[in-house]
Amino acid sequence: MNPLTVAVRREHEPGEHRVALTPDGVGRLVASGLTVLVESDAGAAAWFDNAAYAEAGAELVATAELYDRAEVVLSIGLVPPERLRTGQAVVGMFAPLRQPEYAADLAAHGVTMISLDGVPRTLSRAQAMDALTSQANIAGYKAVLVAANAYQRFLPLLITAAGTARPAEVLILGAGVAGLQAIGTARRLGAVVHAYDVRPAARGEVESLGATFVELTSVADARGEGGYARALTDDEQLAQQRELAERIGRHDVVITTAQVPGRRPPLLVTADALKALKPGSVVVDLAASPFGGNVAGSEPGRTVVTGNGVSVIGTDNLPATMPTAASTAYSRNITALLLHLVHEGALAIDGGDEIQAGVLITHGGAVVHPGVARLLERTPS
Amino acid sequence: MNPLTVAVRREHEPGEHRVALTPDGVGRLVASGLTVLVESDAGAAAWFDNAAYAEAGAELVATAELYDRAEVVLSIGLVPPERLRTGQAVVGMFAPLRQPEYAADLAAHGVTMISLDGVPRTLSRAQAMDALTSQANIAGYKAVLVAANAYQRFLPLLITAAGTARPAEVLILGAGVAGLQAIGTARRLGAVVHAYDVRPAARGEVESLGATFVELTSVADARGEGGYARALTDDEQLAQQRELAERIGRHDVVITTAQVPGRRPPLLVTADALKALKPGSVVVDLAASPFGGNVAGSEPGRTVVTGNGVSVIGTDNLPATMPTAASTAYSRNITALLLHLVHEGALAIDGGDEIQAGVLITHGGAVVHPGVARLLERTPS
Repeated sequence: MNPLTVAVRREHEPGEHRVALTPDGVGRLVASGLTVLVESDAGAAAWFDNAAYAEAGAELVATAELYDRAEVVLSIGLVPPERLRTGQAVVGMFAPLRQPEYAADLAAHGVTMISLDGVPRTLSRAQAMDALTSQANIAGYKAVLVAANAYQRFLPLLITAAGTARPAEVLILGAGVAGLQAIGTARRLGAVVHAYDVRPAARGEVESLGATFVELTSVADARGEGGYARALTDDEQLAQQRELAERIGRHDVVITTAQVPGRRPPLLVTADALKALKPGSVVVDLAASPFGGNVAGSEPGRTVVTGNGVSVIGTDNLPATMPTAASTAYSRNITALLLHLVHEGALAIDGGDEIQAGVLITHGGAVVHPGVARLLERTPS
Repeated sequence: MNPLTVAVRREHEPGEHRVALTPDGVGRLVASGLTVLVESDAGAAAWFDNAAYAEAGAELVATAELYDRAEVVLSIGLVPPERLRTGQAVVGMFAPLRQPEYAADLAAHGVTMISLDGVPRTLSRAQAMDALTSQANIAGYKAVLVAANAYQRFLPLLITAAGTARPAEVLILGAGVAGLQAIGTARRLGAVVHAYDVRPAARGEVESLGATFVELTSVADARGEGGYARALTDDEQLAQQRELAERIGRHDVVITTAQVPGRRPPLLVTADALKALKPGSVVVDLAASPFGGNVAGSEPGRTVVTGNGVSVIGTDNLPATMPTAASTAYSRNITALLLHLVHEGALAIDGGDEIQAGVLITHGGAVVHPGVARLLERTPS
């Protein structure tokens, strides 16, 4: 029996410095009997060089050979469909609920798509495969560094001969993985931290990190599926925005992290709320996207300074700005998933497996994930 | 008796966002019977607006009127001598030991120069006037944020479902004010911190902040005057560089802060030491200057990536990147010094006063500070 051949591609998206598998991950897959090909310089931007991959047991190959020989392509971003052929599989983080057309395209090419963002996040045996969590951890940490770097005062309390600097008041909106990591990092730096989430269950986690939970009367409970928040009704959202606007102005730094899967991010910080902030305040929007983010006027990859001197920083793929850490975590996630899927040297597709039901998007020429299939039915191409 | 008129100028150096006096400082001087003029928009880049100055009791004026009416001009950087006239005084941070020609120029214009960097740093009643300390505090804090932002892994230990990230190993060279603040900030962020200083007295302070003191055998003791280190002999420096080179490679982040007053900064991290660092390591040189810094090849205001993937970040006026905090502290320093110097509504020049002996550089048409005068005798103009 020939061992399964998995291939690590070099990412091409601008600013994407991560790589799907590190030399450490190569070692694990090789030890499990897989053949690993690595595209030359695939890890260079994350400081994993070709020599380290070779030492770990990978075969360094040029691009054409990689796609020619691969049975499974490991990736982070989208792999151009024209590179792939019927019977191949790709594993990556393809956000199929946001971009279902790509899934349709791969299905038409007969390619099996396995997407890490479909890992069931509440299933404890799947935690090691949860790339959304591992990358959100990085985004939450880095968001605080970005904010602290842009903020023109100290975050910590500082008592010196030239007087006392009061600690910064930081507000974190959304206390999921990124939000909790942001709370922890801001607390490390000595800030006074408040945090808000529409899920009442977040209170305990927020408080255990030393932050104060902000309670709004407008939205009592917006628990959704899979640990996420549900989308709010229009009335709820308006009431929430108004109530937040009254509070936001008290803070020096605001970091927003609110996502609802498959939908555009909720607007939490309105233009009015921005006007209530003091000049020199910093707002970091982790949800900034071309379709809008959590903050009015935020743009991914740009800093916009409002008329009253508030810097609105729209982030753009923050995990890719810490590519060594992000690739290391992602590599562990993808390795764990792959070893779960491979049996006797081949991908063992099994729709009855709870993890596979989440991650398997296309197979045998069809979109097999019900959620993605439903989206495609709604949007005629 | 007319009250003394002090004037706050708008800084003009590129990237200089600080202002010498905040609205809070205006309030203190006005309460002490001084008249305060503020150049329009002097505090804008540090988020202190004209209205706040006016509310605090200052008179907002245009540039020409400012210099016309001022008896004392408060500044951070150099004031163009042609703006000034005989009998006026300027108070700022003029580094007269590094740029004595400016002092000669002001003396020739009959201007009294008072420089905050001459405050005796070991005199406890002068601590509130010590702008070198207040600004070095900011530089040390910000240096860690800059390093953490550039570093592509986590600083803290992180234990997650996707594995454990070990904490970063950070080395701080020079444990003066900036170095100690850098140690504290890196420790806050969860890094493992080592620190080195040529003054053995630094050990206690380093250890009290939770860092490990690095002991070299090559330089036993290099205590100098005023709490500073003395300059090393050539042999000592070579031995020190070699011994450091062996240790530097073990670290992920290196921050250098070593200064010897009136001399070019000592080279601590040689090209060989840089080669010993791992790809992806970050070196921040707080002493980067056009005349060289603590790190081989560093350039102020630039990031240089070495052939082996080490980012060498040469800082350039870091306190000005946190202008609100830096101006607040500087304003307290300059206010304390000014109130020490003013008696009965006038500057009371008194060479017998220990503080004045340090800060008074030119007066009555002459360079009166012995150290600066000595430098000028050596360099014929």
